[in-house]
Amino acid sequence: MAEMSYRTALIVGVGAGLSAALARTFTGAGMKVALAARRAANLAALAKEVGGKAFACDATKRAEVEKLFVDIEAHFGAPDVVAYNASYRTRGPFVELDPAEVEKSLMVSAFGGFLVAQEAVKRMLPRAQGAILFTGASASVKGYAQSAPFAMGKFALRGLAQSLAREFSPQGIHVAHVVIDGGIRSAGRTPPADKPDSMLDPDAIAQTYLDILRQPRSAWAWEIELRPWVERF
Amino acid sequence: MAEMSYRTALIVGVGAGLSAALARTFTGAGMKVALAARRAANLAALAKEVGGKAFACDATKRAEVEKLFVDIEAHFGAPDVVAYNASYRTRGPFVELDPAEVEKSLMVSAFGGFLVAQEAVKRMLPRAQGAILFTGASASVKGYAQSAPFAMGKFALRGLAQSLAREFSPQGIHVAHVVIDGGIRSAGRTPPADKPDSMLDPDAIAQTYLDILRQPRSAWAWEIELRPWVERF
Amino acid sequence: MAEMSYRTALIVGVGAGLSAALARTFTGAGMKVALAARRAANLAALAKEVGGKAFACDATKRAEVEKLFVDIEAHFGAPDVVAYNASYRTRGPFVELDPAEVEKSLMVSAFGGFLVAQEAVKRMLPRAQGAILFTGASASVKGYAQSAPFAMGKFALRGLAQSLAREFSPQGIHVAHVVIDGGIRSAGRTPPADKPDSMLDPDAIAQTYLDILRQPRSAWAWEIELRPWVERF
Amino acid sequence: MAEMSYRTALIVGVGAGLSAALARTFTGAGMKVALAARRAANLAALAKEVGGKAFACDATKRAEVEKLFVDIEAHFGAPDVVAYNASYRTRGPFVELDPAEVEKSLMVSAFGGFLVAQEAVKRMLPRAQGAILFTGASASVKGYAQSAPFAMGKFALRGLAQSLAREFSPQGIHVAHVVIDGGIRSAGRTPPADKPDSMLDPDAIAQTYLDILRQPRSAWAWEIELRPWVERF
Repeated sequence: MAEMSYRTALIVGVGAGLSAALARTFTGAGMKVALAARRAANLAALAKEVGGKAFACDATKRAEVEKLFVDIEAHFGAPDVVAYNASYRTRGPFVELDPAEVEKSLMVSAFGGFLVAQEAVKRMLPRAQGAILFTGASASVKGYAQSAPFAMGKFALRGLAQSLAREFSPQGIHVAHVVIDGGIRSAGRTPPADKPDSMLDPDAIAQTYLDILRQPRSAWAWEIELRPWVERF
Repeated sequence: MAEMSYRTALIVGVGAGLSAALARTFTGAGMKVALAARRAANLAALAKEVGGKAFACDATKRAEVEKLFVDIEAHFGAPDVVAYNASYRTRGPFVELDPAEVEKSLMVSAFGGFLVAQEAVKRMLPRAQGAILFTGASASVKGYAQSAPFAMGKFALRGLAQSLAREFSPQGIHVAHVVIDGGIRSAGRTPPADKPDSMLDPDAIAQTYLDILRQPRSAWAWEIELRPWVERF
Repeated sequence: MAEMSYRTALIVGVGAGLSAALARTFTGAGMKVALAARRAANLAALAKEVGGKAFACDATKRAEVEKLFVDIEAHFGAPDVVAYNASYRTRGPFVELDPAEVEKSLMVSAFGGFLVAQEAVKRMLPRAQGAILFTGASASVKGYAQSAPFAMGKFALRGLAQSLAREFSPQGIHVAHVVIDGGIRSAGRTPPADKPDSMLDPDAIAQTYLDILRQPRSAWAWEIELRPWVERF
Repeated sequence: MAEMSYRTALIVGVGAGLSAALARTFTGAGMKVALAARRAANLAALAKEVGGKAFACDATKRAEVEKLFVDIEAHFGAPDVVAYNASYRTRGPFVELDPAEVEKSLMVSAFGGFLVAQEAVKRMLPRAQGAILFTGASASVKGYAQSAPFAMGKFALRGLAQSLAREFSPQGIHVAHVVIDGGIRSAGRTPPADKPDSMLDPDAIAQTYLDILRQPRSAWAWEIELRPWVERF
């Protein structure tokens, strides 16, 4: 197994089961973990469990994102790894969608990713090292009926990730986009008892994130799609 | 040649050579044409030339888009065809990008497309007929270095177009996305004299838009990429 | 409407409704049409109807393809337009597929396309003009369960078409690949009476082939997907 | 790290550095390894090194592939993992390509993959477990000028892999396609001394193959693209 040189990770958009799984997996691999979400209170227990630290941050607000990185830097040093998991969606018949909600989808799912990536890259470039992982969804590559806002946000995030991969891979920064094509199991959303692995297990997803971080730079993936074995595709 | 039943077209984002070519081509095919841009003054000459009408509208403002459709309806009846050409881009080294400009890229290139499409679909659904054409770019399908904001906006617009095609094709509304992969020739941007067709001619692009409008619904395209014969791809 | 300079067309793989529709549409646009299929007898009536000529040719046999072009050249002059529609498929549970049938799928659907394109390009290059159209299917871009052989043949044909577009567009030869995503209506396969256009009408497909031939070379499409308005995608 | 239940692997098309790296990596992960190539003599040293066994097999010949699996079964038991790396290419100006070489490209790069997969699946289905890994190339997803035969073969192999993933994932068989987008370093092909990791290291690629084998089935990837950090894409 290749040695991994990353020491500190920031996970943005904590709350879902995936972020908790990433926090545990990254911690298990020897990294210090910072957790960020709009309400830091939600993160307290997880931060304590993994020995990390929680930060309150609205990722769509430039000043808050700048402050987040300054605070993390003061606490841990600049993060080697940043995972952007935040997203927001509204859905329903297209003609009934609330434009304000559509704008929020774009802001949380895509613009927040830009703000976080920009602060991250500023600190990774001088060291010519680092990794930025974006969490995508089925909607990143396929626009579904009655779900244009999520497609808009997730397509945009993928465009961001691809541009960053082209711009910064040659600078030593690994940019990857993981397309989660299926439902993630969680406390409130479990698969049928007779098909326990028919939904994506957050720990299984986190394993692939870690695999990506361990790829030697002579053979980097910029995008990986994950789906349950039984998922139609 | 199949008979085309569309009678009225709205072109949003006029200014570039493409919108003028669309206005002339659509007029030549027997449609009444409405032109919309932030500054209607810029459109006066073109509107006069094609016997159409110019409207001032900032496509990122919900109230202005709603008023635009009310005004067109009063003047021409609701548009059968809507072409969304507006876009905005900022580029340069990623770490130097101004977040306000990035937000504007998303708003003009994608959110404006949502607002315009929503008003258009509201009026097309009851008639079970109409066409919405979105103008894409190379950046719609490929995120380039130093150009993340344009990729974000154009990827998002493509996600919107695909969602709408899935939701509304079965309702009789033809939604199409045209990827313009190369530079469009214009007064200020001409190809070398010895290679007169090495840049996209706006009239040639407009011809394909009209071809799309004439496709019988048993064989619709939802996406077409266009590039000059000499363009590397 | 742009003037089209093509005068002679060869359609390979005649038999399906599409080839007959292409023959009629191309003839209607002023082209002389040559028809080729394994059994020329099947083509006699169509050739007579359109004032063209039928040729017997097994497109998977190099000598037969070479002779086909020599014969057409003697009769009409070299074809300006070549449409390759031949394909062969076998399907069923993967473990039960007959390897000989799988090989035939590759040979008819892809290798024949290579042989025909090679003879066509040899004659188009000196004139720096011509068009080669390949007919694809849903299976060109999506490998379905129980249908690996068709996917293998159609994916391969698409790879051929894309390579040729890259190699020969800058030489003035328009190479295009049309993905037919859905069932084509024919004498033996008709849509429900209440949904007359829920299957692809061959004439509607042929209209798009002609649109492609009329595209000015400053704005060429290399691939277009067509599907019925009601088709799920 | 998830426990991996695979015990035996077959690598077809040994010769390149990648197959040797796979042999060492799979052996290191506790698997018994069978190696197959047209000339088994070439594999003797590698087989000895990894404690595996070499088999002579022309993968384009049905009878030889059937015998290969019978022989492996007798020696090791049926393989849990099969990696298909064989390919053949011819390139040059399209009009100068030798059709016999083009046919060989299709046969080795794609048809051999079919034959090997069919024998593999026959043995995996009853156990509802196994993995089939196909090695792709840049040409799997992009048809380059002067390289149509390789694109045809590699596109076809990808179509096969995708069909198999759709058909057999729900049966518990993990089918994956790895796109190697760049040059692989080997004894005869090394990167510049000042850029030691500017070509794909076979061991780095093999690490990702092993990562794929270790993915829990609730989160499987069916395709991963790998390229060196400095590779243009």
